[in-house]
Amino acid sequence: MRRIGMLTSGGDCQALNAAMRGVVKSLFTSGEAIEIYGFLDGYKGLINCNVRMLDGRDFSGILTKGGTILGTSRTPFKTITEPDENGVDKIAAMKQNYYKLGLECLVVLGGNGTHKTANLLSEEGLNVITLPKTIDNDLWGTDMTFGFQSAVNIATDAIDCIHTTAASHGRVFIVEVMGHKVGWLTLNAGMAGGADIILVPEIPYDINKVISKIDERDKRGSHFTIIAVAEGAISKEDAKLSKKDYKEKLAKSPYPSVSYEIAAAIQKKTGREVRVTVPGHMQRGGSPCPYDRVFASRLGAEAGRLILEEKYGFMVGYKNREIVKVPLKDVAGKLKSLDANSSIVKEAKWLGISFGD
Amino acid sequence: MRRIGMLTSGGDCQALNAAMRGVVKSLFTSGEAIEIYGFLDGYKGLINCNVRMLDGRDFSGILTKGGTILGTSRTPFKTITEPDENGVDKIAAMKQNYYKLGLECLVVLGGNGTHKTANLLSEEGLNVITLPKTIDNDLWGTDMTFGFQSAVNIATDAIDCIHTTAASHGRVFIVEVMGHKVGWLTLNAGMAGGADIILVPEIPYDINKVISKIDERDKRGSHFTIIAVAEGAISKEDAKLSKKDYKEKLAKSPYPSVSYEIAAAIQKKTGREVRVTVPGHMQRGGSPCPYDRVFASRLGAEAGRLILEEKYGFMVGYKNREIVKVPLKDVAGKLKSLDANSSIVKEAKWLGISFGD
Amino acid sequence: MRRIGMLTSGGDCQALNAAMRGVVKSLFTSGEAIEIYGFLDGYKGLINCNVRMLDGRDFSGILTKGGTILGTSRTPFKTITEPDENGVDKIAAMKQNYYKLGLECLVVLGGNGTHKTANLLSEEGLNVITLPKTIDNDLWGTDMTFGFQSAVNIATDAIDCIHTTAASHGRVFIVEVMGHKVGWLTLNAGMAGGADIILVPEIPYDINKVISKIDERDKRGSHFTIIAVAEGAISKEDAKLSKKDYKEKLAKSPYPSVSYEIAAAIQKKTGREVRVTVPGHMQRGGSPCPYDRVFASRLGAEAGRLILEEKYGFMVGYKNREIVKVPLKDVAGKLKSLDANSSIVKEAKWLGISFGD
Amino acid sequence: MRRIGMLTSGGDCQALNAAMRGVVKSLFTSGEAIEIYGFLDGYKGLINCNVRMLDGRDFSGILTKGGTILGTSRTPFKTITEPDENGVDKIAAMKQNYYKLGLECLVVLGGNGTHKTANLLSEEGLNVITLPKTIDNDLWGTDMTFGFQSAVNIATDAIDCIHTTAASHGRVFIVEVMGHKVGWLTLNAGMAGGADIILVPEIPYDINKVISKIDERDKRGSHFTIIAVAEGAISKEDAKLSKKDYKEKLAKSPYPSVSYEIAAAIQKKTGREVRVTVPGHMQRGGSPCPYDRVFASRLGAEAGRLILEEKYGFMVGYKNREIVKVPLKDVAGKLKSLDANSSIVKEAKWLGISFGD
Repeated sequence: MRRIGMLTSGGDCQALNAAMRGVVKSLFTSGEAIEIYGFLDGYKGLINCNVRMLDGRDFSGILTKGGTILGTSRTPFKTITEPDENGVDKIAAMKQNYYKLGLECLVVLGGNGTHKTANLLSEEGLNVITLPKTIDNDLWGTDMTFGFQSAVNIATDAIDCIHTTAASHGRVFIVEVMGHKVGWLTLNAGMAGGADIILVPEIPYDINKVISKIDERDKRGSHFTIIAVAEGAISKEDAKLSKKDYKEKLAKSPYPSVSYEIAAAIQKKTGREVRVTVPGHMQRGGSPCPYDRVFASRLGAEAGRLILEEKYGFMVGYKNREIVKVPLKDVAGKLKSLDANSSIVKEAKWLGISFGD
Repeated sequence: MRRIGMLTSGGDCQALNAAMRGVVKSLFTSGEAIEIYGFLDGYKGLINCNVRMLDGRDFSGILTKGGTILGTSRTPFKTITEPDENGVDKIAAMKQNYYKLGLECLVVLGGNGTHKTANLLSEEGLNVITLPKTIDNDLWGTDMTFGFQSAVNIATDAIDCIHTTAASHGRVFIVEVMGHKVGWLTLNAGMAGGADIILVPEIPYDINKVISKIDERDKRGSHFTIIAVAEGAISKEDAKLSKKDYKEKLAKSPYPSVSYEIAAAIQKKTGREVRVTVPGHMQRGGSPCPYDRVFASRLGAEAGRLILEEKYGFMVGYKNREIVKVPLKDVAGKLKSLDANSSIVKEAKWLGISFGD
Repeated sequence: MRRIGMLTSGGDCQALNAAMRGVVKSLFTSGEAIEIYGFLDGYKGLINCNVRMLDGRDFSGILTKGGTILGTSRTPFKTITEPDENGVDKIAAMKQNYYKLGLECLVVLGGNGTHKTANLLSEEGLNVITLPKTIDNDLWGTDMTFGFQSAVNIATDAIDCIHTTAASHGRVFIVEVMGHKVGWLTLNAGMAGGADIILVPEIPYDINKVISKIDERDKRGSHFTIIAVAEGAISKEDAKLSKKDYKEKLAKSPYPSVSYEIAAAIQKKTGREVRVTVPGHMQRGGSPCPYDRVFASRLGAEAGRLILEEKYGFMVGYKNREIVKVPLKDVAGKLKSLDANSSIVKEAKWLGISFGD
Repeated sequence: MRRIGMLTSGGDCQALNAAMRGVVKSLFTSGEAIEIYGFLDGYKGLINCNVRMLDGRDFSGILTKGGTILGTSRTPFKTITEPDENGVDKIAAMKQNYYKLGLECLVVLGGNGTHKTANLLSEEGLNVITLPKTIDNDLWGTDMTFGFQSAVNIATDAIDCIHTTAASHGRVFIVEVMGHKVGWLTLNAGMAGGADIILVPEIPYDINKVISKIDERDKRGSHFTIIAVAEGAISKEDAKLSKKDYKEKLAKSPYPSVSYEIAAAIQKKTGREVRVTVPGHMQRGGSPCPYDRVFASRLGAEAGRLILEEKYGFMVGYKNREIVKVPLKDVAGKLKSLDANSSIVKEAKWLGISFGD
């Protein structure tokens, strides 16, 4: 009998359920005796032993369902060594519950923060397998994360919708796209939506270059411009600030987000009307797209096999179109950023897209 | 030879192109000699005689296309009697261009503001036919406006996306829905998306009632709540203010919109985390839904017939599932609000939805 | 304590779950003590007392879910008086189980066939409330049925997809749309998809008129034509046959459906390449569209109220934008066909659409 | 001045326009003097010199548009050396028109058949650059072709729609998926749609294994089964036939396609009701998905650069997430099939999917 614990941690995204279904189908198809314990609401469930035994019916029909049937929460890694609100030592509690339930391993689905904790638990001796969940696609060690393509679709839909209005009104429109500190999501949605300007954190922008592009379009007879702005976009001046100074600047900013600051700057310098649209949390929700369903199912299937082969301490990732296993210690604490000199950025520029640089 | 002028005015929405295509197909199918003059960017195009002759090819393939091929602009009715930025008398200019081009009639597609001007032009002796365009569905004299159902779909998509995240994180989520001063869009999207609370301008809310509903759900085991908030939603206290006082209050508000104010109030009173999502202009854009395509085409077809029969001074509307003609003077300046005692509101309450009243 | 039986019968369609959720929410919100018994797989479940008690959790999250959580089956009305495969008297068994379970009433969701049986049960003394489910929109006594608008959307999607291929290849394309013996679905999807020719059962077609339209388009430079054909479309000659003779002719036909016969006729007479696409059962499936979700929820809410008020023997329908109750005996055995002289058909013709008549 | 010819050939698919826009934007952004000549309806346009000069406006707004603005046709490679219906030597005519127009190169978008001709033209001395267009993903030398992911989405939608009906009625449903002689499309759509059985050409099936899977599901309480069948699926016995014998067998088959044959076999052996749905040409149509828009734009951008660098004789492909150039002679006449021992097939089996082998 194998007892497998499972939890989803961090911001939810599409295909979490598809991935868990993949793990469980892969285990059950093996014919071995398996028990699945689902911890509720992320690491919190493991800390408090808030757990539910799951059977095949729990995983039936969830391939297409957004969110996570286990619930999730953000547990900041930097406070992992501090006791929780009940004074409980979090790491000790997690280990204790793992052993108390007689688990053979723990399957963890999450993003960057989640992987730091997963690696710590692995170093503490637990058998851990992780799956790369994030719409940001910023996990080191894998070409792709599930949730990303679904989020690209939603952000692109937003740009598509805005396009007709922008063209009809001859306006400048900013669509703010998620992605945390990296530009993958914005770059892809921007290219898919035919954005004229794309601003990403990895390529700090010069507001005057942004305005030049708008003017150039105007002269050519295109009286509207679509700007896809990553939530983490940063100007050249701000990029020179220390991390601490920039944080302080943001905290004092009168603008709800960087998009509004950019809008105000364009409006001030050109007198043009600029509108901002923020699809926000919509980007993490809804049914996963077919790409993510297949991808997450494949990752889950491989995770199930690793468990059957008792190979632990890995994230199941994707490299050169094959599923691979990546040591957790290689993943934790690293960020996969967009390279400003990568082919896709060059290609975007050849297409006439400005990065404001 | 009939010369027909056409323009789209006000905020753009889905199916404007489908409606214009309907008018033109209906005219061309008649076999009569017809010329179509499209004024660009709304009434501005008529004032400045910024006009383009259109033929069949201009209307080919636009049934499914969002926005308006003519462009649009908002021309505030209250300044219609003031000269424009070039010192031109707007009404005189519009009449002059109408006669100069030898138009037989003017087809105007627009919402409430647009209809005031259209009625004025009709009173000034121009032959005017209008079509009811607005995602708000607030035009008097018609059961339905085109754009509305497409906007319901987009707002519902937003709620659907948010639903999985809200459930996974056990959070309160507000989705702010457009609709200007009426609640049609929010009510329909809220019911379609399974919102637990719906706040509309016509039914002022009590924040404590809103919180009670959240608490009641929590006690029943539903640790998340979805609130659909109309952009024009108003609290009971604010509803007691004079229009002027309320405007002033809004102007001074630290919140970008009423949703953020409601979120802050809930957060303050309950300590719960509340997130706000604003799909915004997305709701006016993208390809019209099949319902709107059929509806706008039907309205356009009937408008074409009215022109052939030389019946002017009407908005082509929809009553009890039939296309009707409504005298422009009956439409102008009126608002079709949601009735707090209507069947649909009662039904929504029977379904357990709270209006915070 | 009220005990309510519920079943779904006939072909499944979108928003069956939304409607049942509406009934149950409406009953539970009243605060009265209620028990819901769900019969599985249509009337079969009532005959065999294959029943499951349902609680609130069964109805949670199903607003957006296609199909029916109760399962369904087609039980032909003409065999209702014959014993079933186990020799059971069906009517007697249904009455017996109804009384045995101590039901106060039976809520039945279905289309035309279903309503005949529902009316019979009502005449036999059972308390029956029905809800109008069908993608065909052919139920007498209601302006609209749920499932219809969702099916229009899917059939329109099919036409939209085909459109680009037809235009790129300069081909004649037939899209066969469901709708049983009526043309509502085909007419609406055809108009929404910009079909050039629409063939419906209520307006028998002349193949030469169809070909004339294709030729006329070709001469104007449109080298492709989209034909939306209802599965029940019929030629003028065939329409002259007796019902029996036509059935025999169909049985002997070498073509899988009328669309293929039309395609072959066009191909033979013109030498053009004609392709047929049949979205088929897709049209009944998938998540209900927002319109259907709201509509089915409203009908369900009103059905719940009728039960609380103990008003039985009705179908909950929709007339002039209000929910109404229609005596079952007025609904059973009647068909709501498209009127060849109705406004919408005239409007479609004004738009240049040929009905081949 | 560079004069570039362009044509699209073979069955149309999504993102053809996006790819052409990519090429042209990439060329125009370079600032060089460029003229684009579009040949209409595939190689036919090159043979007959049916050509149109295109400018920036032709490529504006087509990123999201299905089909091809140039039109397309299938020109069978095996008749390329035969004179056309006007007695014209096709190859000579193509070369003559290429030189007559003073073209620097020819950009060809197409699939397998198209590439054979493109390679032939390259060998004849023309400068040729190709782009890999096909929903089948069967082009040798590239990991991915544009159109594929969009087609996966549509086929998955079909399965999603069928899923609710299959479950509600407890039926076996077959969804026939395109893909010509390879299984990529069916495998991906089947996995994304949660199909229980997937039959692809590369893995011949045993009908008894298919039935065992249906029975096994039935015993577990899942009374419905979804089978995704590739249009090119083949049974183990048929796979033993010579190509010629199999063709003859197909020609004599009473079934419209292999799916109907499989349905009949299951029905005969088990007495179960089996339904077949064939989304057909829908799979090639409609707006390209964001993935395909980005991918096709990238390929187009790189093709533009190759032209500027005067590097000819290549297909622009995709390997290990980078755009690569593949010599045309390596592509022509080869087929990229699914490997029955590949990871993705193994993973699908671990998920419990049967391939009937």
